[in-house]
Amino acid sequence: MYDINESKEIINKAFIAINIGREPSGLYEPIAYALSVGGKRLRPALAIMACNLFTDKVENAINPALGIEIFHNFTLLHDDIMDNAPIRRGNPTVHAKWNNNTAILSGDAMMIKANQFIAKTPVEFLPAVLDVFNQVALQVCEGQQYDMNFEKQQIVFEEDYLEMIRLKTAVLIGGAIKIGAIIGNASKADADHLYHFGENLGLAFQLQDDLLDSFGDSKVFGKAIGGDIIANKKTFLLINTLNTLSGNDLVELKKWTKAEEFDNNEKIEAVKNLFSKANVEHLTKERISKYLSKALEHLEKVSVKDDKKEILIELCQSLTNRSK
Amino acid sequence: MYDINESKEIINKAFIAINIGREPSGLYEPIAYALSVGGKRLRPALAIMACNLFTDKVENAINPALGIEIFHNFTLLHDDIMDNAPIRRGNPTVHAKWNNNTAILSGDAMMIKANQFIAKTPVEFLPAVLDVFNQVALQVCEGQQYDMNFEKQQIVFEEDYLEMIRLKTAVLIGGAIKIGAIIGNASKADADHLYHFGENLGLAFQLQDDLLDSFGDSKVFGKAIGGDIIANKKTFLLINTLNTLSGNDLVELKKWTKAEEFDNNEKIEAVKNLFSKANVEHLTKERISKYLSKALEHLEKVSVKDDKKEILIELCQSLTNRSK
Repeated sequence: MYDINESKEIINKAFIAINIGREPSGLYEPIAYALSVGGKRLRPALAIMACNLFTDKVENAINPALGIEIFHNFTLLHDDIMDNAPIRRGNPTVHAKWNNNTAILSGDAMMIKANQFIAKTPVEFLPAVLDVFNQVALQVCEGQQYDMNFEKQQIVFEEDYLEMIRLKTAVLIGGAIKIGAIIGNASKADADHLYHFGENLGLAFQLQDDLLDSFGDSKVFGKAIGGDIIANKKTFLLINTLNTLSGNDLVELKKWTKAEEFDNNEKIEAVKNLFSKANVEHLTKERISKYLSKALEHLEKVSVKDDKKEILIELCQSLTNRSK
Repeated sequence: MYDINESKEIINKAFIAINIGREPSGLYEPIAYALSVGGKRLRPALAIMACNLFTDKVENAINPALGIEIFHNFTLLHDDIMDNAPIRRGNPTVHAKWNNNTAILSGDAMMIKANQFIAKTPVEFLPAVLDVFNQVALQVCEGQQYDMNFEKQQIVFEEDYLEMIRLKTAVLIGGAIKIGAIIGNASKADADHLYHFGENLGLAFQLQDDLLDSFGDSKVFGKAIGGDIIANKKTFLLINTLNTLSGNDLVELKKWTKAEEFDNNEKIEAVKNLFSKANVEHLTKERISKYLSKALEHLEKVSVKDDKKEILIELCQSLTNRSK
């Protein structure tokens, strides 16, 4: 069985071998740059691991897994234009390094490249894989649209936030795992359970990200703490703090979210203090556990021997106990 | 045999029946708008006609043909952002009516929708169709990149311009026809000849567009004459006029292309006058005929009875004798 690190190794090796294209360089250099910046390679590694539950031969899953990772990086590239984000993984974003038009067009070409790798799925699994891939790809766009809508909304309900992160983040993780399972020749029931395993894992993963953004250790987390707080991002933490606090505490929180000029560290400290008063760190951890339990319930129902599932169970623990 | 109008009718009927999506409306309304604005439906109609060369049953080609048309409209949507174009087919462009972020994200979703329709190709033809579709889709991006590069270049060579329009316009027309042929169960040789038929037709078609932009009748053409002249677009006409003129005429042409303030009609009249001195209307018509002949040579070699090809031959004549 390939564990997460071995699966990532397979993916990283395959990435080195692929040819993204050369000319026109204005189109292909930004793609090579975006893919070289790295990242966790979580989705393609999960596709390999899911395939590996059902077969020792994971070669057939490699190209579709690369397609999923290229697609994921494409969404980051276009999201960064829409969010006007200058930095991604410690490096300038494509639109910041080049310009918006370059980022739009290179992103488009990247999505087509993703499709080319998905299309290398063995033909007997191709229609099923395309169904999953195109559906979750569209849902990722829906999630991004809701995320942008929320920026303009005064109030976001918790359930709407959870649906947004399900669409924007969780379904692609579920889809990656399901695609791996399909290519491993899993039954429909097993593939569906693995999809829901990934979807719930993805929800836990995103809530963990929300938590780390406020309560992580910046040295370990790899980026500055409190970015969501400064931007008033309506995360699970802020939404629940707004729902929980009352009186002066609520007045203070609203003062900070409306403030136009402030010292960043002062705002971060003050809002974190209010988060603590609302006990949202605990609440978020509870919710993460809930999603994790749901994920494991679905994994439980997958009809392969228990010892094969251990690697995925360990992965769940490490992803949601992570500090970066 | 379905002629071009009957093929368009099939496509337009199918368009009415499709469900693009509803929520979030901020994502799907711009897509429905972009698709409702219409257009010639040339590419999907050609896919139907190509399929019809080999079989009476064209139903299998309808969904992939819709996918090609949705993809084409997606490229227009993103191109209009990059070109900062406010109007398309007489209506506000998506980024002008909504905003850039909406146009980026709705465009992305539109490309995924296109892939969903392409994926409805019968499985026996699916890998071949995806190969063609993804390849020409990528080439369209390459063409757009060269087109943007040319805006910043002082000099564009004729052969580079022709390669740009081949990528940006002609290969998708070739691809649409080839995909129709593949689904009609054409031999590889026939499908390839039809691809080159479409590619050459596409080149003729684009040169005709260049010609109409300067020498068309605005009432018939459907948009104002001289847009390319005002924007100094390095079309086949401008490139060849620059290559042909000398002395005072060349000085005058360069004066107009460098002028920052001018009366639009005055510039259009003056540059058209210089185009006429360089005899580029005739030169362009000659080139159109050359591409048309090449297209017909490839059609000639397709192994179906001559009477089946007549509709496509007529279509060639009408597209390149068109005044809009």
